[in-house]
Amino acid sequence: MPQVAIIMGSANDYPILEPACKLLEHFGVSYTVRVLSAHRTPREAADFAGKLEEMGVQVVIAAAGKAAALPGVIAAHTLLPVIGLPIKSSTMDGMDSLLSIVQMPPGIPVATVAINGGENAALLAVQIMTLTNPELKKAFAEHRKQQTQKVLEQDRQLQLDIAAK
Amino acid sequence: MPQVAIIMGSANDYPILEPACKLLEHFGVSYTVRVLSAHRTPREAADFAGKLEEMGVQVVIAAAGKAAALPGVIAAHTLLPVIGLPIKSSTMDGMDSLLSIVQMPPGIPVATVAINGGENAALLAVQIMTLTNPELKKAFAEHRKQQTQKVLEQDRQLQLDIAAK
Amino acid sequence: MPQVAIIMGSANDYPILEPACKLLEHFGVSYTVRVLSAHRTPREAADFAGKLEEMGVQVVIAAAGKAAALPGVIAAHTLLPVIGLPIKSSTMDGMDSLLSIVQMPPGIPVATVAINGGENAALLAVQIMTLTNPELKKAFAEHRKQQTQKVLEQDRQLQLDIAAK
Amino acid sequence: MPQVAIIMGSANDYPILEPACKLLEHFGVSYTVRVLSAHRTPREAADFAGKLEEMGVQVVIAAAGKAAALPGVIAAHTLLPVIGLPIKSSTMDGMDSLLSIVQMPPGIPVATVAINGGENAALLAVQIMTLTNPELKKAFAEHRKQQTQKVLEQDRQLQLDIAAK
Amino acid sequence: MPQVAIIMGSANDYPILEPACKLLEHFGVSYTVRVLSAHRTPREAADFAGKLEEMGVQVVIAAAGKAAALPGVIAAHTLLPVIGLPIKSSTMDGMDSLLSIVQMPPGIPVATVAINGGENAALLAVQIMTLTNPELKKAFAEHRKQQTQKVLEQDRQLQLDIAAK
Amino acid sequence: MPQVAIIMGSANDYPILEPACKLLEHFGVSYTVRVLSAHRTPREAADFAGKLEEMGVQVVIAAAGKAAALPGVIAAHTLLPVIGLPIKSSTMDGMDSLLSIVQMPPGIPVATVAINGGENAALLAVQIMTLTNPELKKAFAEHRKQQTQKVLEQDRQLQLDIAAK
Amino acid sequence: MPQVAIIMGSANDYPILEPACKLLEHFGVSYTVRVLSAHRTPREAADFAGKLEEMGVQVVIAAAGKAAALPGVIAAHTLLPVIGLPIKSSTMDGMDSLLSIVQMPPGIPVATVAINGGENAALLAVQIMTLTNPELKKAFAEHRKQQTQKVLEQDRQLQLDIAAK
Amino acid sequence: MPQVAIIMGSANDYPILEPACKLLEHFGVSYTVRVLSAHRTPREAADFAGKLEEMGVQVVIAAAGKAAALPGVIAAHTLLPVIGLPIKSSTMDGMDSLLSIVQMPPGIPVATVAINGGENAALLAVQIMTLTNPELKKAFAEHRKQQTQKVLEQDRQLQLDIAAK
Repeated sequence: MPQVAIIMGSANDYPILEPACKLLEHFGVSYTVRVLSAHRTPREAADFAGKLEEMGVQVVIAAAGKAAALPGVIAAHTLLPVIGLPIKSSTMDGMDSLLSIVQMPPGIPVATVAINGGENAALLAVQIMTLTNPELKKAFAEHRKQQTQKVLEQDRQLQLDIAAK
Repeated sequence: MPQVAIIMGSANDYPILEPACKLLEHFGVSYTVRVLSAHRTPREAADFAGKLEEMGVQVVIAAAGKAAALPGVIAAHTLLPVIGLPIKSSTMDGMDSLLSIVQMPPGIPVATVAINGGENAALLAVQIMTLTNPELKKAFAEHRKQQTQKVLEQDRQLQLDIAAK
Repeated sequence: MPQVAIIMGSANDYPILEPACKLLEHFGVSYTVRVLSAHRTPREAADFAGKLEEMGVQVVIAAAGKAAALPGVIAAHTLLPVIGLPIKSSTMDGMDSLLSIVQMPPGIPVATVAINGGENAALLAVQIMTLTNPELKKAFAEHRKQQTQKVLEQDRQLQLDIAAK
Repeated sequence: MPQVAIIMGSANDYPILEPACKLLEHFGVSYTVRVLSAHRTPREAADFAGKLEEMGVQVVIAAAGKAAALPGVIAAHTLLPVIGLPIKSSTMDGMDSLLSIVQMPPGIPVATVAINGGENAALLAVQIMTLTNPELKKAFAEHRKQQTQKVLEQDRQLQLDIAAK
Repeated sequence: MPQVAIIMGSANDYPILEPACKLLEHFGVSYTVRVLSAHRTPREAADFAGKLEEMGVQVVIAAAGKAAALPGVIAAHTLLPVIGLPIKSSTMDGMDSLLSIVQMPPGIPVATVAINGGENAALLAVQIMTLTNPELKKAFAEHRKQQTQKVLEQDRQLQLDIAAK
Repeated sequence: MPQVAIIMGSANDYPILEPACKLLEHFGVSYTVRVLSAHRTPREAADFAGKLEEMGVQVVIAAAGKAAALPGVIAAHTLLPVIGLPIKSSTMDGMDSLLSIVQMPPGIPVATVAINGGENAALLAVQIMTLTNPELKKAFAEHRKQQTQKVLEQDRQLQLDIAAK
Repeated sequence: MPQVAIIMGSANDYPILEPACKLLEHFGVSYTVRVLSAHRTPREAADFAGKLEEMGVQVVIAAAGKAAALPGVIAAHTLLPVIGLPIKSSTMDGMDSLLSIVQMPPGIPVATVAINGGENAALLAVQIMTLTNPELKKAFAEHRKQQTQKVLEQDRQLQLDIAAK
Repeated sequence: MPQVAIIMGSANDYPILEPACKLLEHFGVSYTVRVLSAHRTPREAADFAGKLEEMGVQVVIAAAGKAAALPGVIAAHTLLPVIGLPIKSSTMDGMDSLLSIVQMPPGIPVATVAINGGENAALLAVQIMTLTNPELKKAFAEHRKQQTQKVLEQDRQLQLDIAAK
């Protein structure tokens, strides 16, 4: 029973989502990954979105590029919060994907993260789930601390490197 | 039995579509106008798209603003050609609407016209229908001629106005 | 004890947030509204962010315009999910605000909604809170239904208006 | 006697159009391919556009990059529907091509598809021709089904790949 | 016998061109003003462009908005230098007009001036004609001097205004 | 003997600079205001820039719109730090001004502030001068505190207003 | 005695200008090439611009990237027509260069060609010089014809290539 | 005791800052380099900014990419002038970084230089410090002269190269 559903518009988008999968595994969050297109498999996408709640899913990550309708369409078919991940397309630097996802009209929000920001999509999903899961919250707090430590370590290392020159 | 279905994401978009309706009436083309949202009424939008062919519709005009998923979603649910009309939103000068409509991924095209280009959406619909309707083609050719005449008349008038100064 | 904290970078942004407040009241969600600037009151903003959890807040909405650092800075000081609301600035159509909020580097996500999308910010907050609150979920489901009904009613009305012409 | 005329502004654009040609062949649609420039061969372009109808052409695909006047100029010289295909230029990510094609002033529409969207240009041409050709419609419906199957197959494969890790 | 031909895509563009006309009159340069559309009167536009040289025209100013093909199309039909004037359209702040005019592919240049820069279009035309006309050159040099004087006078006045506060 | 020189490309830009003047007066910083154009009075602009040091000026504020060469040109003629203030032009939302000022090639920096950010231009000038002036530093620190107080007061007032509803 | 002066802001821009040089040589037009920076050698740039007329130069080509002040600064110091050539910079796809050159304020026009459009800069220079040089006009007309022939030849070749498949 | 503090949001940005370090060394200006993130180490960043004055730092250079809050956050915690250096991110050509840094709201300016303009960030820092350091001013003036000489040398060399062809 997956807690997070990851939906991408094309299997080509998987490399952007792999870090998200890794992060969810790190947090012990179960997930399912699906390729479903708002345009090429609209019925399957709507059906899957409609079943997410009864599947026990708590948060959805929907990734798409270009005229990226998928996150909004999934959001239209479920009451669950949907995180939108704009994929950088071959033209436009992902600006088309970003605007197609973030500029949702009133009524159906999509929680949009940065272009190609797979890691942040997973972190946001975890962050939302911490509201109902104190264990996950501890793990999330720990992850934050380690993240801070990594930057501080980078800081120390760079100063050593410069001093050594 | 409408030949053209006009679908808009919000009743607020009607002023942009009114010139399209007028033009279709001018050409004696029957049409129906619907307010259906890809995000707020996704099932109704999909259902309507799925019935368009049996209704006898030949061409669809779908207008939407911001993260404008409607034209692509309609196109995903019908085999009929869909004309996408980007509506200028309150921010972004309609760039978000344009990219959300025109940048369709391979497989489901949307025939996109200019931002707020209601008139051209109707003309394109008529132009497509002329392929099956010689009477309509005559009317369309006549309309083109008059359009040319109007510019030539503008040209004459401006020269008179300038000469009169 | 507020469930949602709304933070804006300037009191001038309040009109964009008022619909959000109204919606939260509609759902019976308690909230607090604060004016705190990432640049002009950085300590107060950081302090407030640091206390959100012990205040019992579950979700944060942070709104800012131009070089809109506020949502990211709040997110950096709390483990709670932060919804970023880009405010349309006097130049740039809000593009500066959007990019400053959505393009967060890996590690600290901000759940970004549309430029000036106050209503969607509130709906996303509610949607996240439904994960822990079955009553709120019912109210949210009901709100969605009414929203759909409103579009269908718009649809009927427009057809009547056109038929009446 | 070609049913579709493909016109490109430069022979360099052919790689973007090759998938379109392949798709037309798949559907058994005859076509002709021409290199004609709105700027360097304006008379030949206008002449060719003027003869399209008597040649039996039903739909035109016009592809061009940068200040991409070709689709609009062809549309100005024929009553046939013209599909505009913006080519990504060496600078600007194709934004110049897109705006030069899609932002047609009232009176002469161009049915614009995505930047470098050769495949969609062909599919839109076929879709328009299905209005007069029931056989083609069947083939088009079949193509859609296969396209859906391919995404579903991608979906299955990705889940197998992930399970196998 | 006009020395400059001013061509605009729509009579609505005249207010942007009126300062250009005034400036040409100031310099005693004869001109003709025409409304000709690359899309709605393509033959007339091409014919007029083809006759410019024998009319004695030395420089052309072509103004257009949106998918502004006119300057490039005129340039394609004449050997005379063509100045392109992008008109600010109702959407896009004139960016569509600018890119449609300035991004000409190799072979047919258009000398592009600023969006809505009617005055500069005229000055550039005059500047080009000074190469063959020493009297005009004197007048142009005088105009430059006066222009400099005007800024210096603005400078003095502003300092007086500030001192008087 | 002015400590700050304010140079604008056109007297029309004065309203954007008036808050800067007010702020400098508040800090007791002497200044001079000049209208000098990089394009229409290039010699006077270069001459003035060349004399700034011997005039005792410490910091320059240069404001310009559109193809805003003024700040860079002033910077090229003086060793003093130059603050560039992009003025929002009638088209392009000031993006043209911003890029013309901030994207200086290596060798001659311009310290660019926000579009129409007159107040920040003055604050940056003051901030730079505090390095040599302890009195000014105290006044600047005091200004910062009051600025913080104003936001905190806005915060209190908004909460009172909301509570009063 | 050069007829055309080519000025570039950096020697790195030479590859973009080499095709322009080749074209000028093809037409037998003499030219000089200079590296002069509006920012790093402002006096030399102004001095050179001020001497262009007495050197017998008829047209100037000024190329620059990023905050590309050079063309406008040259234009400010000469009465000769100045062609501005925006160089694609390492970021921004040359949009910064284009806007810095084309958006000249009223009074000093720059005849702007496409980003990296070295060939068109030379053709525009030649085109302007044909006004005073009937021999050059013949050569220019011949060049146009050959250019048209090359496209027609491309057209024939592509059709042969496709037929041969 | 460093005179300049260089802060970057990620160690990955160091290559853009290395030329800045080299330049500061050339001028004999002492500096410290730190990796501190406005989002991942917000407390450390604020603490460091708060101690800059007592450390004797005179100018700060803060570099960051994407939603680049760092320069503004540092500026909010110190009275020292802060130079903002936008780093080109993997998408958006650095436009997101630029707008996040330059568009600071009134009250807290950031002196922004070009995208990836590490050299100019250092030069601006030096330029500001020359106000208090006559020796540094001499060195800076000398550097400017050499910079001018380098362009003039480029100019001579290019002319020799062309003559040699």
